[in-house]
Amino acid sequence: MANAIVGQSGGPTSVINSSLAGVFQACQMRGAEHVYGMLHGIQGLLEEKVCDLSVRLASFLDIELLKRTPSSFLGSCRYKLPAPEDDPATYEKLFLILKKLDIRWFFYIGGNDSMDTINKLARYGKQVGSEIRFMGVPKTIDNDLMLTDHTPGYGSAAKYIGVVMKEIIRDATVYGTNYVTIVEVMGRNAGWLTAAAALSRGEDCEGVDLICLPELPFHTDRFLEKVERMQKERSSVVIAVSEGVKLPDGRFVCELSDDARSKDAFGHINLTGTARYLSNLVARNLPTKTRAVELSILQRCGAHLASRTDITEAFQVGGAAAKAAFEGETAKMVALKRLSNDPYQCTTELVDIDQVANYEKKVPLEWINESRTDMLPEFLAYARPLIQAELTPIYINGLTQHIVEERV
Amino acid sequence: MANAIVGQSGGPTSVINSSLAGVFQACQMRGAEHVYGMLHGIQGLLEEKVCDLSVRLASFLDIELLKRTPSSFLGSCRYKLPAPEDDPATYEKLFLILKKLDIRWFFYIGGNDSMDTINKLARYGKQVGSEIRFMGVPKTIDNDLMLTDHTPGYGSAAKYIGVVMKEIIRDATVYGTNYVTIVEVMGRNAGWLTAAAALSRGEDCEGVDLICLPELPFHTDRFLEKVERMQKERSSVVIAVSEGVKLPDGRFVCELSDDARSKDAFGHINLTGTARYLSNLVARNLPTKTRAVELSILQRCGAHLASRTDITEAFQVGGAAAKAAFEGETAKMVALKRLSNDPYQCTTELVDIDQVANYEKKVPLEWINESRTDMLPEFLAYARPLIQAELTPIYINGLTQHIVEERV
Repeated sequence: MANAIVGQSGGPTSVINSSLAGVFQACQMRGAEHVYGMLHGIQGLLEEKVCDLSVRLASFLDIELLKRTPSSFLGSCRYKLPAPEDDPATYEKLFLILKKLDIRWFFYIGGNDSMDTINKLARYGKQVGSEIRFMGVPKTIDNDLMLTDHTPGYGSAAKYIGVVMKEIIRDATVYGTNYVTIVEVMGRNAGWLTAAAALSRGEDCEGVDLICLPELPFHTDRFLEKVERMQKERSSVVIAVSEGVKLPDGRFVCELSDDARSKDAFGHINLTGTARYLSNLVARNLPTKTRAVELSILQRCGAHLASRTDITEAFQVGGAAAKAAFEGETAKMVALKRLSNDPYQCTTELVDIDQVANYEKKVPLEWINESRTDMLPEFLAYARPLIQAELTPIYINGLTQHIVEERV
Repeated sequence: MANAIVGQSGGPTSVINSSLAGVFQACQMRGAEHVYGMLHGIQGLLEEKVCDLSVRLASFLDIELLKRTPSSFLGSCRYKLPAPEDDPATYEKLFLILKKLDIRWFFYIGGNDSMDTINKLARYGKQVGSEIRFMGVPKTIDNDLMLTDHTPGYGSAAKYIGVVMKEIIRDATVYGTNYVTIVEVMGRNAGWLTAAAALSRGEDCEGVDLICLPELPFHTDRFLEKVERMQKERSSVVIAVSEGVKLPDGRFVCELSDDARSKDAFGHINLTGTARYLSNLVARNLPTKTRAVELSILQRCGAHLASRTDITEAFQVGGAAAKAAFEGETAKMVALKRLSNDPYQCTTELVDIDQVANYEKKVPLEWINESRTDMLPEFLAYARPLIQAELTPIYINGLTQHIVEERV
């Protein structure tokens, strides 16, 4: 019998390790002799940094802790694999390493860029007649992958945003004075996370007063007008704004701020400072106090608030990827397919990896209200099922407990 | 029979409403005809904005939700009461309102500034021969009140910091590359909250690498040296820094940044941007990527992570204040007195309000290690009991549920 290998890539989520658990357990059950883990993804694999997961994840408690541990247990990377045509040497090296490890099933858990990696590997594998099956397992808090109803990781991030936005609104209204709180939410081009702030409204919460998505051009003058109008209606205004909101000329709003910025390996600008810039703008133009809150990395690693629905689905897509690979599928990603909203039912299906890689799914504009301030019920019906239920953290000595891999 | 009134003041905490529940239930049980709530503290009282708590908190479920609702249910204020000598008219007005409401027991839940309010009210009351009993109920995440072992609110904030710091550390180490993450924690002059970052270290977590408290002068050159040294030892460095760290010349480090700053009613500078300034400083001076994370207001309003020990004690100090007031005490604050660490035992006692107001309790320097990078076991033994146990949030439709007062 041959072996399986699994890696994690891109930004962490609260449930990416649940997908790892799903791949691992399904490969074991289906008879993989060893299930290896790449340390720091494809980049670590190129340096032959792998571990034997069967050793590290030996007990049921290990698996339970893994499901509750945020970020990537195996470590991650932001390594852009060159095209096979441009750099065959890298592929030769990689496939040699895979051969040495006797790999027949290869899994990569990640977002857009990771699906690009799977796509390239499968293409090269086909060229050289390799028998290795390459499967993509979706993961991203951004929810911007094509051909899947939603992505594992989004539900937990949305739940985190809904819960903490309710808490922030309680805090923001406490003085009853004019006060504008601007909360910055992740999301470069797609506003799925920022839209999740709309979940906060309910019998016990006023909800956010304004939602600014990157799908719509951001006009600073209209923004100030809206804030001024809202301030006349209520004592405290809370705004959710995407880090990725852009001016009509295409520049990011945060580029107007004076922070040093840099680019990552994929050429993306590091976005930060949008809320701070806007809160200074409001403070300069309106007679009000302001506060900027960045949800920052906790929205992707706040596993103590993970959605059980999300954890379960993350585990399922891992298992479905293993099943498909063992049945001979390759160059595919497992997608989630929603069967119904009420009761919520969802299943998995396979989609061609080249239909996913390098595309982005945006929030449909018809889910935003006419005055461009809030989400419509269609969005809430879509998002609400994804944040349901909890997986109680395991607390030891007052703190949530994790499982940690020694990564060299 | 006469009536009681209770108000909340200063910054919110996750458990200030638990103290409100404690005062309310104890006053009801002891026979207060009405228990009124001041809306927005003493400032609202001056405008006769009060509510009847017996109406709003009618059921046991209301009380359970109140214990789980962050921020101040009654609203808060940052109103500095003038000295009775300077402005007798305000006091005449206040005492007239209290007379109209037939108040005999007056409770104020808050920190330093709120104890100052109680002190002044009691002094004036004594002058004019009032029979009203004035009691202070301690509350502050900052843990900087004198004469009490700790303050309700601190344990939950410390637990929040411990839990999220573990999650941030998991996230920060994921790429295995040189990366410096600087996490900004609240605390103007006292470093109790920043010190709580030390709780993150354990079998499953490396812990933070450097802790910077406001009790010690901050030398930017030594800071850079320490970061550079630490980077040689480990791939990822995580630093907890107090928003209140000061340069040897007494200026706040954040004053070096270029953000607009303002002062509150008590003349305190609004601190923000310390982590951002330091992360830019590191990025400019060392060959490394950096990230600034502000825990921001969630450390004081993240009730979904509240410590059950803290919630229980917050409830107890409220009840003890009511007991003491009904027994005739006045011009006192309820303090927590620790009897033992292991097993943790704590009781309440009364302290004179003028011994508390306007003093600040700092972290003892002998609880900091010699190289000024970490907390010693003495601190951990002090803090660990305060973060123990949880009060499971009540989730409805995927989100934590609160109780909300209509405050006009």
